[in-house]
Amino acid sequence: MSTADLSNGPVCPIPISNYPNVLLAHGGGGKLSHQLISTMIAGHFDNPALRQLHDGAVVTAGGAQLAFSTDSYVISPIFFPGGNIGELSVYGTVNDLTMCGAVPKFISAGFIIEEGLPMEQLWRIVQAMKAAADRAGVQIVTGDTKVVDRGKGDGIFINTAGIGLIPSGRAVAPDAARPGDRIIVSGEIAQHGIAIMSVREGLEFETTILSDCAPLNGLVEAMYPVSSGIRVLRDPTRGGVASALNEIAGSARCGIRIHEQQIPVNAEVRGACELLGFDPLYVANEGKLLAFVAAEDADTVLAAMRTHPLGAKAAIIGEVVADHPGTVVMTTSIGSSRVVDMLSGEQLPRIC
Amino acid sequence: MSTADLSNGPVCPIPISNYPNVLLAHGGGGKLSHQLISTMIAGHFDNPALRQLHDGAVVTAGGAQLAFSTDSYVISPIFFPGGNIGELSVYGTVNDLTMCGAVPKFISAGFIIEEGLPMEQLWRIVQAMKAAADRAGVQIVTGDTKVVDRGKGDGIFINTAGIGLIPSGRAVAPDAARPGDRIIVSGEIAQHGIAIMSVREGLEFETTILSDCAPLNGLVEAMYPVSSGIRVLRDPTRGGVASALNEIAGSARCGIRIHEQQIPVNAEVRGACELLGFDPLYVANEGKLLAFVAAEDADTVLAAMRTHPLGAKAAIIGEVVADHPGTVVMTTSIGSSRVVDMLSGEQLPRIC
Repeated sequence: MSTADLSNGPVCPIPISNYPNVLLAHGGGGKLSHQLISTMIAGHFDNPALRQLHDGAVVTAGGAQLAFSTDSYVISPIFFPGGNIGELSVYGTVNDLTMCGAVPKFISAGFIIEEGLPMEQLWRIVQAMKAAADRAGVQIVTGDTKVVDRGKGDGIFINTAGIGLIPSGRAVAPDAARPGDRIIVSGEIAQHGIAIMSVREGLEFETTILSDCAPLNGLVEAMYPVSSGIRVLRDPTRGGVASALNEIAGSARCGIRIHEQQIPVNAEVRGACELLGFDPLYVANEGKLLAFVAAEDADTVLAAMRTHPLGAKAAIIGEVVADHPGTVVMTTSIGSSRVVDMLSGEQLPRIC
Repeated sequence: MSTADLSNGPVCPIPISNYPNVLLAHGGGGKLSHQLISTMIAGHFDNPALRQLHDGAVVTAGGAQLAFSTDSYVISPIFFPGGNIGELSVYGTVNDLTMCGAVPKFISAGFIIEEGLPMEQLWRIVQAMKAAADRAGVQIVTGDTKVVDRGKGDGIFINTAGIGLIPSGRAVAPDAARPGDRIIVSGEIAQHGIAIMSVREGLEFETTILSDCAPLNGLVEAMYPVSSGIRVLRDPTRGGVASALNEIAGSARCGIRIHEQQIPVNAEVRGACELLGFDPLYVANEGKLLAFVAAEDADTVLAAMRTHPLGAKAAIIGEVVADHPGTVVMTTSIGSSRVVDMLSGEQLPRIC
């Protein structure tokens, strides 16, 4: 039996005395997630593609340079203002491929359904996936369906994986950021997380806050023609903008400085964050990207982004600095500086 | 909200009056699964790659011919005689790629962990995945980890997707079977399902029945050099040999005749099947394949398979016939004939 087979293997890299069991926070996108993934899982599978800790892997097969990515969606509730788990699962993987510089092509869909899910809900989810695939210009080409007993799942979980083709000459990577690079965000942050939380908490606002979930490949295709200085692309999902910037600062061994007043946040989202006690920098987005761009190209790229509907509110929010490598510092609206740490613990479980 | 958006969409192809909710049997690998997948999911996503209803999709990207496949593993228990969910999740996708004629290259891993899973169990699973990837000669290059609240999952579910490269000149497809083709099974059937069920039922046999879970890419690489007449490859997992043969008979619009006396079944597995009331033809395998081979090459391919450890007990078990298209008929050990239908309802839930 397997128990015996592995008893003499290497010691678990997560100290079991501190963490005898997996906690919700191990999946929250913050420090514990990062520790679990980098030391135990990616650390043990170790290979050059994984070592990049990209949104996806960049691999070569038959002479083609491909991006390959996967994500499981365990969101609760499965229907939310602005979307449902179906389109989220397609756009999420489309965006991860896009963040590797790839043109997304093919998507797989793995369904884990809890016995008792209303058939009509499944049908609406399937339709949303098809519509999302059409909008993003990808094909869902393969899939798998499993059903688990009542009480052993939660309605539906969906895993998608995807393959994208990387045009020659494109190379983005988290460790490619250089001091001087400007950091652009494609629009108002924190909408997805707040849309979900307002449903969970039963909050009502004057207008419904909708998830921003959307495919970012079209926006990125508007950026590449105007610049060869796009260094890093990242969609700040779980853990929000703050966690994404911390990961990049860590990979690139650079410092990052952002400016609070330049970060676009919708007024209602800001109000909801205050009400709920959240910092918008840590709230998940599903249709926004961060681009690290050579300083001399930043204005050109920003202008190109603003011509696209998904980049209309794009803004330069900061820059890469040589100081404080690995650390993100924010100039606050009152002019002081504070460290923006990686999310620790669990802020918004099951947000995607 | 999504509810309203889709209310005027097409009608659900599954009659909701008959099936208002998803049943366990919709994931069992039999008739209801087939109906759900072919009419609702694949039917709605419709595209040429999906229409093949292969173990994976065959796609072209950047000039390379690729196989792309996904599977979610929701097996219970997660540790079983002969393996655990970790190696199962790697071998399962390796085998699906192999059944497309591909050389498996890259694997993704998506973990959905229930809060409270012992960290030490996760570590054993991660180690098993790495060992399985090494044995199969593939790299786990990308992944995702989600944690769901206690009671909303079941220990751990793993999704894997994979990319394989199809060497030029290889073309296998479920609809490529032709009357006269011989059907080869690579070894004794029904071991995986019985290994799982014997744990669940607390059965004890003289020797422990082990799962057959294994990577089949090495075996297939021993077959291709001796024949250009390999028409169909299929690994008979959920739903067993009977369901796989029915799917192929349906795709190829041919009849299939198999011979009960020629089907290799281990004596203890046969005994366990009798005790549990199962027909071994419907029990899942995780390290066996069915090959449909041109009649003139069948003996050569069989001999090549027998030189490989995973094909030592390979046998020719039947042939494709022009009669009764879409139907599988078995000559029984007492000389009569009976129809071998696709599994209906739920035989072995959560077997993989």
